[in-house]
Amino acid sequence: MARKPVIGVIGGQHPSPEAIAHAEAVGRLIAQAGAILACGGLGGVMEAACRGAKAAGGFTVGILPGASKAEANPYVDLPIVTAMSTARNVILVRTADALVAIDGAYGTLSEMAHALDQGKRIVSLGAWDLTKAGVDSHGILDAKTPEEAVRLALAEARAGRA
Amino acid sequence: MARKPVIGVIGGQHPSPEAIAHAEAVGRLIAQAGAILACGGLGGVMEAACRGAKAAGGFTVGILPGASKAEANPYVDLPIVTAMSTARNVILVRTADALVAIDGAYGTLSEMAHALDQGKRIVSLGAWDLTKAGVDSHGILDAKTPEEAVRLALAEARAGRA
Amino acid sequence: MARKPVIGVIGGQHPSPEAIAHAEAVGRLIAQAGAILACGGLGGVMEAACRGAKAAGGFTVGILPGASKAEANPYVDLPIVTAMSTARNVILVRTADALVAIDGAYGTLSEMAHALDQGKRIVSLGAWDLTKAGVDSHGILDAKTPEEAVRLALAEARAGRA
Amino acid sequence: MARKPVIGVIGGQHPSPEAIAHAEAVGRLIAQAGAILACGGLGGVMEAACRGAKAAGGFTVGILPGASKAEANPYVDLPIVTAMSTARNVILVRTADALVAIDGAYGTLSEMAHALDQGKRIVSLGAWDLTKAGVDSHGILDAKTPEEAVRLALAEARAGRA
Repeated sequence: MARKPVIGVIGGQHPSPEAIAHAEAVGRLIAQAGAILACGGLGGVMEAACRGAKAAGGFTVGILPGASKAEANPYVDLPIVTAMSTARNVILVRTADALVAIDGAYGTLSEMAHALDQGKRIVSLGAWDLTKAGVDSHGILDAKTPEEAVRLALAEARAGRA
Repeated sequence: MARKPVIGVIGGQHPSPEAIAHAEAVGRLIAQAGAILACGGLGGVMEAACRGAKAAGGFTVGILPGASKAEANPYVDLPIVTAMSTARNVILVRTADALVAIDGAYGTLSEMAHALDQGKRIVSLGAWDLTKAGVDSHGILDAKTPEEAVRLALAEARAGRA
Repeated sequence: MARKPVIGVIGGQHPSPEAIAHAEAVGRLIAQAGAILACGGLGGVMEAACRGAKAAGGFTVGILPGASKAEANPYVDLPIVTAMSTARNVILVRTADALVAIDGAYGTLSEMAHALDQGKRIVSLGAWDLTKAGVDSHGILDAKTPEEAVRLALAEARAGRA
Repeated sequence: MARKPVIGVIGGQHPSPEAIAHAEAVGRLIAQAGAILACGGLGGVMEAACRGAKAAGGFTVGILPGASKAEANPYVDLPIVTAMSTARNVILVRTADALVAIDGAYGTLSEMAHALDQGKRIVSLGAWDLTKAGVDSHGILDAKTPEEAVRLALAEARAGRA
């Protein structure tokens, strides 16, 4: 059985208007590519990405920090209820075959770090520029547009899921 | 948006032939009801339930204990990679809107206990008879057949997801 | 270096007066034996056991479900802050070299199940009688008194920590 | 009851000789101040810090990623067995009243990010300079020496544990 690739979208709850537009486009493109969108299931970047995916007929998974499905944004098809607070960030990073990071929240920073720690490269669309802090530039793929971000992420997913 | 109900199927890796047949039928009936099947993603009861769901065109989620999707059985559509060993049992119980327990592994026992602890009733199809150990009989719904088990589980899911 | 054995005491927040007396005595005896007491860090059986241990000059660890040390009972020397709700039950069971179960809360039941699943025997001082539900009697050691419970637990800890 | 402060020391398994010397001194100073040292329990920075603390008569906690106490370094007094892989990083950050980061492993980076996400400031002794990547400099306290690092961490612990 060929599983659909899972693309994680990471980003915070209080994004800029540009980050929201980026997240929505990224979600739409993930769905149009036939991939599953995974995220943290809450608002902001997460909600915008899910909304974009649902508008294109995609499937969305929200890996929630709390104990109730009520906290999921309305565009989450499948809430995974961890009740593990930010430890769910690690589960999201492990579940995603590739990751697109949008914006600069500290939770996003933790997810980028866990990805690097797991040997996964991150596609950055305006997220933390960790190479300035000394992270090996091999680990971060800069994208200029949502289209480039999703193209790079799909290639990473294909490469990783041997 | 109306989310599909998520029915969890819990059971071990070394079931009896009867438990395998039950799990496969339960998986099929969950899929035919339009619900998502969630399980621990490994072999035995989990694999049989996923196989049944896929044969009926359903969607299956496997909440894995390890760090790799390679451990998922071949009928899992979406592996959630926790790398949290048996702590993933708690996530499975929280994620399911209702639970069907099949067979008598100790992992299954832990999931029944977590369900009771979270105030969720369990549909038992030949699983541990905890009422004999003093568990309030209100918490456990005995089913005689896969059909009765899935009917009871869907009713629980509807009741719980107000 | 010889590490001190860690004895876990499991039990709920709303115990009977007898369970409270048992827990306090168990905590005291653990401390007098030079072992570390580990528990879930909250009230009821957990608090009584910690109070007993502190009265005898022992050291207590509370593996907390929430995100704040403020929820620890006042007799916890070292709060471990998991913010993982009842998934912390699994950590407690793994951390303990041996376990004494007191009373009949569902969280206790989950911890007994995780212990069985991990191949650890449980010393039961009036806890769930799981042998009535079909659990192999090898896995549960019945104790009549706190003294017998702690003696059995220390023997299990010695046997397990080869 | 006044609990002893818990100072977390974070750093990787393959540190430079300078980082090892720093970690050992930091561990010693934490113990001399009467605080408990918490770390990830493995080798490298973690082992050096525990060794320093034990040489000064301190108490050490290792929050382990695996399922066995056998992976703890020999200077860990109390291994907490999570079997949760790198999700244990989040527990370490939550458990520490203050954190000293030494060296530049990606696991360390994840712990710094989780600390920032939880509103905890990090004392950095040659760790990732996240201010260059845009992190608010308020969140990171640079220390030149182990003495300065522990002094700053103890002050943070006092400030945070109201």
